[in-house]
Amino acid sequence: MTASRLRPLRGIVPPMITPLSDLDQLDVDGLERLIEHILSGGVHGLFILGTTGEAPSLSYRLRRELIERTCRQVDGRVPVLVGITDTSLAESRNMAQASADYGADAVVLAPPYYFTIGQPELIEHLDRLLDGLPLPLMLYNMPGLTKATFEPSTVEQLMQRPGVIGIKDSSGDMDYLHQLVALAEERDDWGILVGPEILLPESVMMGATGGVNGGANLQPRLYVDLYEAAVAGDLQRVRQLHRRVLELGKAIYQVGRYGSSIIKGLKCALSLAGICDDVMASPFNAFAEPERQEVQRRLAALNLEPVK
Amino acid sequence: MTASRLRPLRGIVPPMITPLSDLDQLDVDGLERLIEHILSGGVHGLFILGTTGEAPSLSYRLRRELIERTCRQVDGRVPVLVGITDTSLAESRNMAQASADYGADAVVLAPPYYFTIGQPELIEHLDRLLDGLPLPLMLYNMPGLTKATFEPSTVEQLMQRPGVIGIKDSSGDMDYLHQLVALAEERDDWGILVGPEILLPESVMMGATGGVNGGANLQPRLYVDLYEAAVAGDLQRVRQLHRRVLELGKAIYQVGRYGSSIIKGLKCALSLAGICDDVMASPFNAFAEPERQEVQRRLAALNLEPVK
Amino acid sequence: MTASRLRPLRGIVPPMITPLSDLDQLDVDGLERLIEHILSGGVHGLFILGTTGEAPSLSYRLRRELIERTCRQVDGRVPVLVGITDTSLAESRNMAQASADYGADAVVLAPPYYFTIGQPELIEHLDRLLDGLPLPLMLYNMPGLTKATFEPSTVEQLMQRPGVIGIKDSSGDMDYLHQLVALAEERDDWGILVGPEILLPESVMMGATGGVNGGANLQPRLYVDLYEAAVAGDLQRVRQLHRRVLELGKAIYQVGRYGSSIIKGLKCALSLAGICDDVMASPFNAFAEPERQEVQRRLAALNLEPVK
Amino acid sequence: MTASRLRPLRGIVPPMITPLSDLDQLDVDGLERLIEHILSGGVHGLFILGTTGEAPSLSYRLRRELIERTCRQVDGRVPVLVGITDTSLAESRNMAQASADYGADAVVLAPPYYFTIGQPELIEHLDRLLDGLPLPLMLYNMPGLTKATFEPSTVEQLMQRPGVIGIKDSSGDMDYLHQLVALAEERDDWGILVGPEILLPESVMMGATGGVNGGANLQPRLYVDLYEAAVAGDLQRVRQLHRRVLELGKAIYQVGRYGSSIIKGLKCALSLAGICDDVMASPFNAFAEPERQEVQRRLAALNLEPVK
Repeated sequence: MTASRLRPLRGIVPPMITPLSDLDQLDVDGLERLIEHILSGGVHGLFILGTTGEAPSLSYRLRRELIERTCRQVDGRVPVLVGITDTSLAESRNMAQASADYGADAVVLAPPYYFTIGQPELIEHLDRLLDGLPLPLMLYNMPGLTKATFEPSTVEQLMQRPGVIGIKDSSGDMDYLHQLVALAEERDDWGILVGPEILLPESVMMGATGGVNGGANLQPRLYVDLYEAAVAGDLQRVRQLHRRVLELGKAIYQVGRYGSSIIKGLKCALSLAGICDDVMASPFNAFAEPERQEVQRRLAALNLEPVK
Repeated sequence: MTASRLRPLRGIVPPMITPLSDLDQLDVDGLERLIEHILSGGVHGLFILGTTGEAPSLSYRLRRELIERTCRQVDGRVPVLVGITDTSLAESRNMAQASADYGADAVVLAPPYYFTIGQPELIEHLDRLLDGLPLPLMLYNMPGLTKATFEPSTVEQLMQRPGVIGIKDSSGDMDYLHQLVALAEERDDWGILVGPEILLPESVMMGATGGVNGGANLQPRLYVDLYEAAVAGDLQRVRQLHRRVLELGKAIYQVGRYGSSIIKGLKCALSLAGICDDVMASPFNAFAEPERQEVQRRLAALNLEPVK
Repeated sequence: MTASRLRPLRGIVPPMITPLSDLDQLDVDGLERLIEHILSGGVHGLFILGTTGEAPSLSYRLRRELIERTCRQVDGRVPVLVGITDTSLAESRNMAQASADYGADAVVLAPPYYFTIGQPELIEHLDRLLDGLPLPLMLYNMPGLTKATFEPSTVEQLMQRPGVIGIKDSSGDMDYLHQLVALAEERDDWGILVGPEILLPESVMMGATGGVNGGANLQPRLYVDLYEAAVAGDLQRVRQLHRRVLELGKAIYQVGRYGSSIIKGLKCALSLAGICDDVMASPFNAFAEPERQEVQRRLAALNLEPVK
Repeated sequence: MTASRLRPLRGIVPPMITPLSDLDQLDVDGLERLIEHILSGGVHGLFILGTTGEAPSLSYRLRRELIERTCRQVDGRVPVLVGITDTSLAESRNMAQASADYGADAVVLAPPYYFTIGQPELIEHLDRLLDGLPLPLMLYNMPGLTKATFEPSTVEQLMQRPGVIGIKDSSGDMDYLHQLVALAEERDDWGILVGPEILLPESVMMGATGGVNGGANLQPRLYVDLYEAAVAGDLQRVRQLHRRVLELGKAIYQVGRYGSSIIKGLKCALSLAGICDDVMASPFNAFAEPERQEVQRRLAALNLEPVK
């Protein structure tokens, strides 16, 4: 049953990049290879149409196609979560319905992100969405891009709603994460997934249930291993694997400029590994040749586990 | 001809609120009354689906209906500008095509607002959009909500593109506005419209061509008069009318909490005047009864020109 | 009488740079030349030990020496205002006493700037300082550097204190300035001086009483002329002189990097004009030779009024 | 020998609050009791005149008195570190000399905090300070209050200077802390102390050498125990003690408003425990009676280890 896999969601749930072959066109073969590559690493779920998936930059047509193809390819091996974050309640609902229709397991929502909103407004917005929502919902805290935060007192209220199964926190704020952990002390059905991979081990050691870490697109096994070492409290192995995560990040996240360098670096590395294309959705661009070669040089120096 | 009315666009171009009768439902009669009310004030254009119009919160279906009905109602009396700001290039293009199909005169675009982007990325995004765009484009600088700014050097480049006719600046930063004015010193076909109504007179006295001021939904004539006093350099009349703008803002913009209090206040005042409904798009809510009465009390104390 | 010159303070009150010949050493001859140069431009006051004066970077010993020498040199020709902004109440008091002892006319205080403070704390701090303060006090709003703002409701309260004579606003926020003007509508003894020179004309046209503009160290007459044109409402002359202010700023404020480029540019230009040395207080450095030559090139291209 | 205790500094080094009996007057008896209380908890050092010590709000006279009395009272039992953060290089030097004269072991410096400065300026400022500095120096990263950060590349450079022994990081940013740990991988003489007590365990488990945690003024043993559990990798004990730290924080840090509520809460709790007075330096105020009773209620509910 899906339910037991989602309550709580535990382990590594990679936020999948969206393979594109052109503006508004999916790289269909790359998508299949990428899903198989990620699942081969032993991950515990798959999250599509998040920030790493460039969801807000994609047309709704393409988003639907991606949900359909992903659900068909995964075919129940792990839970599929779909990002339905939007500025419009109606469009969030539309994507949630599509997710249910194609067989996804849950949806994920960050606050509407154009206007500056208050917490009571956020709660009412969520309640409107939850009314009739066809799938379980995971909250997504991403204040750097959405302006609004799910404040701890808001999370405390939303935890009481039947369909809400957990929260993904990409704030990078450990103080906030500690508050989430404290709120869920009595709730063994509530998931707390941490976004920034750099914070994965301490988050798990201090009480989070897993991670939604972009680097797991490329090296899924590394993140699964690190998650398991943290669960076991094996400090030495944690520090050793964490150093590899840091090195991987240096190799592929710091080549370009601007906020998009992480997604660009991931797509570039996946393209170098022959998994999928590195076309970006506007307003972003794939790395040009010099940056691409720089990523290749850095990755070669790392001596990573080979991609199958 | 439309062309001469847009090059440059001069005067008061109210950013129309979107009258709703329910979630995702247009207040059709209210829309007609509102358009007639605004046009009766002698304004120089009408801007729909901007921030004041709550565009990002509306479904695409409703946005299309609004464009169609507005263009039909205005029927060429003033230019109609349509906001097509989106996080997705494909969806911006879709709305631009709809605007052309229904007979609008120009489209307005703020930067894509989910990701943090660099200026070269912004320029390339604009160039992709301009390629085949069916209507003239006005830039919309709104850094408080979109993160990215149209930096002066970016504006300088985009001013060279044939289809770009001006910029609306809602930054509230007079230093920035002075830079825009300096850039356009030799370009008498380039519009510079200021967003914050509080800055209308000094902006016009120092070189802007007009204003996109929310308060003109309610009191269009007041803003037209202030614009004309500023053009004439009549300092005494400018200060007198500016005081009324300040008082109006105190009456209707500072009642609620959160970033939405301006739009809520406007809709509430329009509803009190019998013009249209005050339903807000999620995540916002109309004022509750106590706040509504407070707005009414404050408006009564102002002794404004009666709404026809 | 001093009183009439301060209630309100009207016109141009340059924030004097502090001429140094070495770390913690005053350029005594340069100081005399600089004061004479500034006064020759017809300014209405002199403000020392502000931000432009690098006050926080100077030792208390040097600050005392500067107050003493400046008061002696000015010798009552215009009012001398002394910045006593500090994180410590005791040290602010010490500098206020020194200012009175050496014959200054007023002191100027921005909020204590290390801690994040609330408005009630700010008001109590001010009340402690005002108790026994030997000179009139001007408030100094500088939120970009001090964190705390003098919020309008706080200014409204502090306007009631007998010794407080006005406010200098360096926020660059015209909306805030309009609120200050509205507060002082009935108070013709209250000064409102604007900091950013770029905003001088619109501020004066909309109700401010003058400016504290750094560029007046170099071109005092230009700012006095612009102030007078704005008072007269001569829009054409205002725009013409404002263009010169913009050009001067481009020539000397945008050469270096970091927040200090304005002060560095001013000192560099004054040094090129043979008025005083361009040594900066740590943590800043004078421009190196290439930047110095760039400033010289740009100034030459401007064809400014020659320095006497 | 002191040297071995400082290279690296390991363990809990409480940032001592400054006991006052009046504005600009030390609570001399309270100071003695407080030092003995803290040392009785087994801490590894004492840090005076930091943020928690309200240093920027104190007169230089009082700061000197505090250094002298503290050094005399501690009498070499643990290293004494003295904050010399200042906006003026000359005044930082003066305080460093006083620290050496009175027998302190090291000084601590955050970036000069009035101006916005660049990293090269920060490095040069440090080099000027280090030239002839009579004591070892610990860097203090506190970007929330000082604006400038010690960026990792800057720390990397300053680590090469002979007199610099480590860094205290109060940014609350675990990503930054990981970068510090990576920089010091080969440097077993380099200290990394974390400020926010909430982050103590994960910081130590991931490689920091200790903590500078305000709560250790009140419950020094709790923090020493937590530090030791983290060093030992005892996850269960870590979580248990961490929960007490969270509860303590809730009891005393969240009663007042504004940024000062932490220091106020600490002083209030110490006053309730009969250790020292709770007078605050301006611009802060001690809690009024209702807030004081609230702290007392909350502390009673906690059932803390009694203060001796």
